Amino acid sequence: MNNRNNNKTERNNRGRRNPKEQKGGRKKAKLRIVPLGGLNEIGKNITVVEYKDDIVIVDCGMTFPDNDMPGIDIVIPDITYLEKNEHKIRGILLTHGHEDHIGAIPYVLRKISVPIYGTRLTLGLLANKLKEHRLKPTMVEVTPGNKFNLGVFGIDFIRASHSMPDAASIAIDTPRGTILFTGDFKIDFTPIDGVNMDLPKLAEIGTRGVLCLFADSTNVEREGYTMSERTVGEEFKKQFYDAPSRIIVATFASNLHRVQQVIYAAEHFNKKLIISGRSMVNNIEVASRLGYLKIKKDTVIDIHRINDFPPERIVVLTTGSQGEPMSALTRMAHGDHRQVQLNNEDTVIISATPIPGNELTVYDVINRLMEMGVKVVYSAMADIHVSGHACREELKLVHALVRPKFFVPVHGESRHLKIHAELAASMGMPRENILVANNGSVIEFTEDSMEMNETVDAGHVLVDGLGIGDVGNVVLRDRKHLSEDGLIVVVMTANKLSGKIDGPDIISRGFVYVKESEDLMEGMRKSVRSTLDTCEHDRVRDWSTVKNQVRSSLRSYIFGKIKRNPMILPVIIEA
Amino acid sequence: MNNRNNNKTERNNRGRRNPKEQKGGRKKAKLRIVPLGGLNEIGKNITVVEYKDDIVIVDCGMTFPDNDMPGIDIVIPDITYLEKNEHKIRGILLTHGHEDHIGAIPYVLRKISVPIYGTRLTLGLLANKLKEHRLKPTMVEVTPGNKFNLGVFGIDFIRASHSMPDAASIAIDTPRGTILFTGDFKIDFTPIDGVNMDLPKLAEIGTRGVLCLFADSTNVEREGYTMSERTVGEEFKKQFYDAPSRIIVATFASNLHRVQQVIYAAEHFNKKLIISGRSMVNNIEVASRLGYLKIKKDTVIDIHRINDFPPERIVVLTTGSQGEPMSALTRMAHGDHRQVQLNNEDTVIISATPIPGNELTVYDVINRLMEMGVKVVYSAMADIHVSGHACREELKLVHALVRPKFFVPVHGESRHLKIHAELAASMGMPRENILVANNGSVIEFTEDSMEMNETVDAGHVLVDGLGIGDVGNVVLRDRKHLSEDGLIVVVMTANKLSGKIDGPDIISRGFVYVKESEDLMEGMRKSVRSTLDTCEHDRVRDWSTVKNQVRSSLRSYIFGKIKRNPMILPVIIEA
Repeated sequence: MNNRNNNKTERNNRGRRNPKEQKGGRKKAKLRIVPLGGLNEIGKNITVVEYKDDIVIVDCGMTFPDNDMPGIDIVIPDITYLEKNEHKIRGILLTHGHEDHIGAIPYVLRKISVPIYGTRLTLGLLANKLKEHRLKPTMVEVTPGNKFNLGVFGIDFIRASHSMPDAASIAIDTPRGTILFTGDFKIDFTPIDGVNMDLPKLAEIGTRGVLCLFADSTNVEREGYTMSERTVGEEFKKQFYDAPSRIIVATFASNLHRVQQVIYAAEHFNKKLIISGRSMVNNIEVASRLGYLKIKKDTVIDIHRINDFPPERIVVLTTGSQGEPMSALTRMAHGDHRQVQLNNEDTVIISATPIPGNELTVYDVINRLMEMGVKVVYSAMADIHVSGHACREELKLVHALVRPKFFVPVHGESRHLKIHAELAASMGMPRENILVANNGSVIEFTEDSMEMNETVDAGHVLVDGLGIGDVGNVVLRDRKHLSEDGLIVVVMTANKLSGKIDGPDIISRGFVYVKESEDLMEGMRKSVRSTLDTCEHDRVRDWSTVKNQVRSSLRSYIFGKIKRNPMILPVIIEA
Repeated sequence: MNNRNNNKTERNNRGRRNPKEQKGGRKKAKLRIVPLGGLNEIGKNITVVEYKDDIVIVDCGMTFPDNDMPGIDIVIPDITYLEKNEHKIRGILLTHGHEDHIGAIPYVLRKISVPIYGTRLTLGLLANKLKEHRLKPTMVEVTPGNKFNLGVFGIDFIRASHSMPDAASIAIDTPRGTILFTGDFKIDFTPIDGVNMDLPKLAEIGTRGVLCLFADSTNVEREGYTMSERTVGEEFKKQFYDAPSRIIVATFASNLHRVQQVIYAAEHFNKKLIISGRSMVNNIEVASRLGYLKIKKDTVIDIHRINDFPPERIVVLTTGSQGEPMSALTRMAHGDHRQVQLNNEDTVIISATPIPGNELTVYDVINRLMEMGVKVVYSAMADIHVSGHACREELKLVHALVRPKFFVPVHGESRHLKIHAELAASMGMPRENILVANNGSVIEFTEDSMEMNETVDAGHVLVDGLGIGDVGNVVLRDRKHLSEDGLIVVVMTANKLSGKIDGPDIISRGFVYVKESEDLMEGMRKSVRSTLDTCEHDRVRDWSTVKNQVRSSLRSYIFGKIKRNPMILPVIIEA
């Protein structure tokens, strides 16, 4: 109730200003917020904040391909809108250093030149990434609490807790009011780095008045509170104590609080730590160099020294908690890791839960490890993972502190956004003040209105190898078709003058095991030959007509025989 | 403790019989148990029980393809071992009517002729399935409690509770002792059909002495008890009461207890029930005809009459709870269902949890429904699903009642089997009496020994369209390759005499968007041409050498340019 009353008061206050605005001076523009990614999807977070000739961008992330995007490496946002408005862009503001918030920057920087603002660790991780791409943009380190201006905007970074240090929420003062992006967050009252989320600041900004809140929706399906990261450390101690010999811990390289706790546990039991996996090595290097990880001098040893210590003194910290095919843990599970050969004395702790879509690869790794006799500790059997995102009660707390006039749920698939909207409504926010938007929606604000009329380009761009955007729906459809029933190439040679067509030679891939399907292959040849005979008889000299007839009759023949529908590529060569 | 003592007593008793056996009459053979499926995998359950010239088979199921089997429809067991021993087979015994226990029968019956034994509903569902395949084997209805003999074996069906009525555990008396297969089960003390699992019978058989227990491991990762199916009925009533208008319930067509509860809830609120989806219609038809579903005369209406009643009187019961692409619910979510167009008054209840691997398709359906404004009730947000399998405490109860001498965990991936083995050990069973086996392991028993020496063929056979087993690893590898980076066909014409090679023509599919990649395509043509010029210059007349050189140089060219590795098919036609 308090919440609603406050909103009403603000609305009335601001309502009074309106006539003045209409009369005097230049007419005020609307504040435009354009999410280009992160809505109705997990990942690829990027939001444009625009007022007249000024734009700032909040985050610039990538995401991973769906199952229906075979061969695609990563997915980045379509930034056509930013390219068109490059002259207005004052900077990219980063909430934290995870890939779904910074991963598209190397690709975006090839199109537009723009300075980047973030906290020390966030920029450290980004710099590491940009080095690989040989990019060196202007990067400006931000200390939360030190406000600064970009164009008409006043920028205020606010300490937030998440699964990585130095995360921030970002408040932006605009000519139409203050907007607040929570970024990814959880409320951890006992954080590993001792840096509490700045809840008093959220309350203070709320009291001053927030026009619109854009809040993380990832865990809105989960009741209650996310457990503190510290609980995982307690479980690590228990598991380390129980382990008879060598310990391998797999977790996200980006979860630096988790990494810190593995380090603490190793040091607590006087074990040596080996770091395995490229992203793990890189992240730990950056974070410890910048002072965000505490590691005693002699804790870490090189992987080549693994046999210099008895196995009970070894902890290997590795990537691969999602069963990624090329990761260190997956290679260990397949017996393909050069330095780490597992045996039935070893304990593997998978400190993560499968991200939806990764269940099968994760379970495959667990099964293989168990087949090797390894003891596997994983989330179904022990409390060795907590989320980095706020559950329902934490979200309610933020809503209650910020008391925004308007609310737009972000960071989530459609169901998360809808449920987060319901959560806000259940706290008394008028439904007309809540908006579930889409990527590309232009959300326009005055002090007391929120509208969505226009849309701009905002799809995804697929990155495959070095190609950016050269794989689209047609290519994906062909890949899917090829993967399901394979391919048949029908090669024929034709004489334009006589109309005679020789062949066919038939080549198949991914269709049937040819050696055991000779009758079928022979039947296919006869079917094509009979089509060609008909074409010759009918004096068809237009080769594309011949090809179409071959494709169509062969498709029917094959489907009739074995109910499959391979891609058929007829090729005619003129002799 | 009790458990261990009993085991010891039995062992001693039997130990005393051994000398007699050695002396008099024919030497006793070993009992051989050969799982051909269901171990280290979920599904495809089939186990051979063999003593001298007699074999009975317990279950004969299928499973669904993994992600690395594109285009495959279903996976069935390799039954080479059964084909070799067909003369010994006395029958297939079915524990219940789910696909992972009966689904391979139509394929197996094409290879071997064998009578099938099962309860009334199990055979009813099987008969329906066999009709589609135009098969009519001998089927013998079994009433639990009525023992019968097959060869040397005494067969005893025991009532079990599961997510479908008429499920059974099966005890088999063999010359070496009694073995017990639990089949799929949970312990539901308040079952929907009022038919309790026959726990007293398990105790009685246990007291008589069980040589080996083969028990369901599906839920061994879960602590405590599986909730009673009846709790879902209570939640249905609550959800039906809350729904403002039309209700759509999606669940497994095979979960007939769930189906019954939807019927009860519809009747309770005086709503009409529409049944949608082929398997749902079929299963309900069979189960109600055989008396396993109670439906009032006027409850069900045809889907074409959906508009004859106001929407608040309509419940649609449908398939598609796993987001299956062609299912009724998925079509509704895409607006493609002919009779059911959803709107923002509708409530969709998804009464299931995603089977691992199906998460993304299920969430996709939920997201699409929510985007349509539909209220979606799903397992993350409400208690509208319970499992049909026993959790840890239920498993312990069965172990405690049966008190077997030996134990082989079945129905599970490697991790389930290992954890189930640990569970048995934690109850005091000696570790040497527990065996985690593989498909194809031959487990040999005497009265007091269990050994695994030999193995037999037991892989999987892939069914793709009408083809059974004609898709193997090479074909799958090609499909995967094609799906990841697409295909390039390089067509050239050659003159054997002059050694001159014309071309190439290059055709690509699933590789790049050709119209926007003209430079790359031109570069590829030049690369091939240059290889051909070299071959001409070197007077290479062996076309397979030319093809290899074209493939290899083009692969390097493409990888250097865009880091992709498409399948390259060079074709040379002799002019």
